[in-house]
Amino acid sequence: MAESTPLRVGIALFPGFQALDAFGPLDCLNVLSTTHPLTLSVLSSTLDPVTSKTSMTSPHAIGQQIVPTHTFATAPPLDVLLVPGGVGTRESSPAVLDTIAFIQKTYPSLKYLITVCTGSGLAALAGVLDGRKATSNKMVFHEMKALRPQVDWVPRARWVTDGNIWTASGVTAGIDLTLAWVAEVYGKDRATAIANEIEHTPHSDASHDPFADLYGL
Amino acid sequence: MAESTPLRVGIALFPGFQALDAFGPLDCLNVLSTTHPLTLSVLSSTLDPVTSKTSMTSPHAIGQQIVPTHTFATAPPLDVLLVPGGVGTRESSPAVLDTIAFIQKTYPSLKYLITVCTGSGLAALAGVLDGRKATSNKMVFHEMKALRPQVDWVPRARWVTDGNIWTASGVTAGIDLTLAWVAEVYGKDRATAIANEIEHTPHSDASHDPFADLYGL
Repeated sequence: MAESTPLRVGIALFPGFQALDAFGPLDCLNVLSTTHPLTLSVLSSTLDPVTSKTSMTSPHAIGQQIVPTHTFATAPPLDVLLVPGGVGTRESSPAVLDTIAFIQKTYPSLKYLITVCTGSGLAALAGVLDGRKATSNKMVFHEMKALRPQVDWVPRARWVTDGNIWTASGVTAGIDLTLAWVAEVYGKDRATAIANEIEHTPHSDASHDPFADLYGL
Repeated sequence: MAESTPLRVGIALFPGFQALDAFGPLDCLNVLSTTHPLTLSVLSSTLDPVTSKTSMTSPHAIGQQIVPTHTFATAPPLDVLLVPGGVGTRESSPAVLDTIAFIQKTYPSLKYLITVCTGSGLAALAGVLDGRKATSNKMVFHEMKALRPQVDWVPRARWVTDGNIWTASGVTAGIDLTLAWVAEVYGKDRATAIANEIEHTPHSDASHDPFADLYGL
């Protein structure tokens, strides 16, 4: 990939997104951006800060607020779209519905679509996973299957690639997926350097999945 | 710990904090808060959003913006203070200087001080690590030692506890530290449940440290 052409990355956020689904991959990209030009657009329905807190969990639940850079309506052209999961994917908030519509609209022009955890459920609802292999969070895997049976859901995987779509299992699997994606796009050395910088020993085998056993899949 | 007494957690943010240093531990606490009452204060020098981007790295560097809930001056009483690291710790930004002063001021009333990565450098500069065992990021370990030789810096550790101070090695070590801390404070079962929910296989041995070898420590 030409060093002079920034890869244009976007992330879709909605209330109740899982913070680490977003910030595992984003922090790998933050480190990547110190050597390879990237642009990042943080997208949501409005420019108001987006909370990782959801009304569906306990009333005590805490969360953090992230500032979008663009709305879905004002998003620049993107090469990569990152879609986190979280309890919020199960609410029909305007931002969740907008995320599904945005995936549907932008997928044809993306170089890569990357989802983490139940983010693949939103990609499934957008129809872009039909007939494709994909994975998701293992604790709610049956829920994902029921959401869109047209998807070839893979129960045992840390992450799955099918064409230009990369789907990770739950939460921290997004870090391993992102390092594998960096290895493919920017080379193994760059991925290893990022892993060493964040002191992470990645699962480099995409089929490694103790959580498939744990949840009886 | 009584279920009815919320543990009051604060996190100190400054420009150029490492996003995953903050969001690894925070996401564990987000999940914990669905079963155990917690309050979270996101602290910085002003209420303006705090960026994880730093001017010290490449001009291309990307980052994300987090909204504080309080300034250091308006922070409520805290039981736990979490201090991330990042390239920003090496800049003398007002928020970094305020973080050091805040650690110094609040440490005597804290139940726990938790640092990730070079966040321990800020705790060291605050003087609260003098004569204590602590660890830090392994890539810049010698820099940390030089910052405050009065600290008993431990070169080989995923994390270190000394009294009520918990210090993690680089970035993702913060996740393992936080799960170990949850196990101590809320019990092993709750820590395991969180690890399973975020699909993380934690390093439960605090002395596990392949990065000490990698960086020749």
